[in-house]
Amino acid sequence: MNYALGLDLGGTNIKALAVTAGGRVAAQTVVPTGDTGQRGWHQNVRRAKDELERVVKQEPTWIGLAAPGLAAADQASIAFMPGRLPGLEGLVWKKFLKVTHPLPVLNDAHAALLGEVWRGAARGSQNAILLTLGTGVGGAALVDGHLLRGQIGRAGHFGHTSLDPAGPPDIARTPGSLEDAIGDCTVSPRTNGRFSSTKRLVAASIAGDSDARQVWLKSVQALAAGIASLINVLDPEVVVIGGGIAQAGGSLFRPLKEYLSDFEWRPGGQKARVVPAKLGDRAGAFGAAWNAIHFPKPT
Amino acid sequence: MNYALGLDLGGTNIKALAVTAGGRVAAQTVVPTGDTGQRGWHQNVRRAKDELERVVKQEPTWIGLAAPGLAAADQASIAFMPGRLPGLEGLVWKKFLKVTHPLPVLNDAHAALLGEVWRGAARGSQNAILLTLGTGVGGAALVDGHLLRGQIGRAGHFGHTSLDPAGPPDIARTPGSLEDAIGDCTVSPRTNGRFSSTKRLVAASIAGDSDARQVWLKSVQALAAGIASLINVLDPEVVVIGGGIAQAGGSLFRPLKEYLSDFEWRPGGQKARVVPAKLGDRAGAFGAAWNAIHFPKPT
Repeated sequence: MNYALGLDLGGTNIKALAVTAGGRVAAQTVVPTGDTGQRGWHQNVRRAKDELERVVKQEPTWIGLAAPGLAAADQASIAFMPGRLPGLEGLVWKKFLKVTHPLPVLNDAHAALLGEVWRGAARGSQNAILLTLGTGVGGAALVDGHLLRGQIGRAGHFGHTSLDPAGPPDIARTPGSLEDAIGDCTVSPRTNGRFSSTKRLVAASIAGDSDARQVWLKSVQALAAGIASLINVLDPEVVVIGGGIAQAGGSLFRPLKEYLSDFEWRPGGQKARVVPAKLGDRAGAFGAAWNAIHFPKPT
Repeated sequence: MNYALGLDLGGTNIKALAVTAGGRVAAQTVVPTGDTGQRGWHQNVRRAKDELERVVKQEPTWIGLAAPGLAAADQASIAFMPGRLPGLEGLVWKKFLKVTHPLPVLNDAHAALLGEVWRGAARGSQNAILLTLGTGVGGAALVDGHLLRGQIGRAGHFGHTSLDPAGPPDIARTPGSLEDAIGDCTVSPRTNGRFSSTKRLVAASIAGDSDARQVWLKSVQALAAGIASLINVLDPEVVVIGGGIAQAGGSLFRPLKEYLSDFEWRPGGQKARVVPAKLGDRAGAFGAAWNAIHFPKPT
């Protein structure tokens, strides 16, 4: 059996899938990343790989990795990732994992979009965007069937778009950013310290707390304005929303669609579909596998 | 001599160029569009074409048109353009101008970017964006050497990005948009009726009017925030600024670059070049010609 190994290196876990070119999952595992502030975490990627190969009892035909940071143009490594996962920048994974075939490396949000296009919520789409709503806000775009990477692999950083030019800078220096308007990273300041997570904020809103509801709706309004902007910039047919905050379900999607019915430009009545992601935390591993199967044909 | 005829239909003038595949201009003309609220304007496009053919004394090998609105996917017509230029929507230019070869039609801002990439400020670039600052704010993006059109030809409408989710809707329903923050359309309300054009606002600012200077710098700050966002979304190597407001020169570019040094995310010190457009009001005609020469190979 030919299969691809898709590895998704996250801040908490390494998700790994053995998947056929047709998209059937033969095996999967999750291995804790370990301390992301220390060297040594990369041995856990090797462990995830070895574990799946033992289960499938065969070496993979293709192998691909997704990781945080900006991927190098040749896809051999992550070229830029400051602050966390020391040793990741410049690590050539083909050498480290001692494989003979190519081992392309992707940005994790880019990989998640490719996963959703291959097996998830954007299946069959040629023009799609993904926003991941979690601690921060990540994203990726598919343009005419090709992943939008940009000049230095930075494309799709939708969290770092400004919704207030005079606002405070976010971690990428964007003033009044979308990430700071809805990411979990700012729930506490947005609620004057009352809530430590979006989950609790939304639960309080559902339970009838009108202050919580007001803060939450303001955040969703900001998200809707950001998405309406991205629709005018990238013109996707589908907008996929993933990440932990998307678990809010109707509490997110109902007001989001209402705001979009005000904000979205709909020439001739056409509108972009807004849908929840389908693959959960396996999207990146699916995308890494897909990218390996199709490498080096540019995606 | 093989040459392409590039026609750019604007609200005021029709710009026409006869240009070789190597980019040499053999002839050019400008014909008034006429009343854009009435039928009859399209005969002036024919006049521009006939005039150039008389000068060159030969029929063109290729012919392309740029016009406002969203171009159809097959590039035969403008599919969506409400409000002005009655009869433009759905007009098949190949039939109307009675030519035997293909006659591809582009959105005017898309055409201007292709022109600047071919013969102007973004020459040789693979990843570039253009913003046109005039009455409104238009734009276009080149991604890996291909024009970004999107699902319905709407991509690149950078003026319709939100800088204030709670702000008033612009003409495309975007709340607190970049277009309304810097376009000539809002100079009067931005200055409490003191100025009717950006040119006058900037002249007053240069002459030492501190109120004018404050309004102008706030507009440039908004533009910088919008551009920083677009850099994070599209990751271009070069940002081309055209349109009448770009004539402000250093009065625009100096503060713009200062704001960008605060707002732009520069991984590893890399930054996007920000440059003025070079082709002036001929950019769209150059792009229409280029598109015709390369049609139907997707651009």
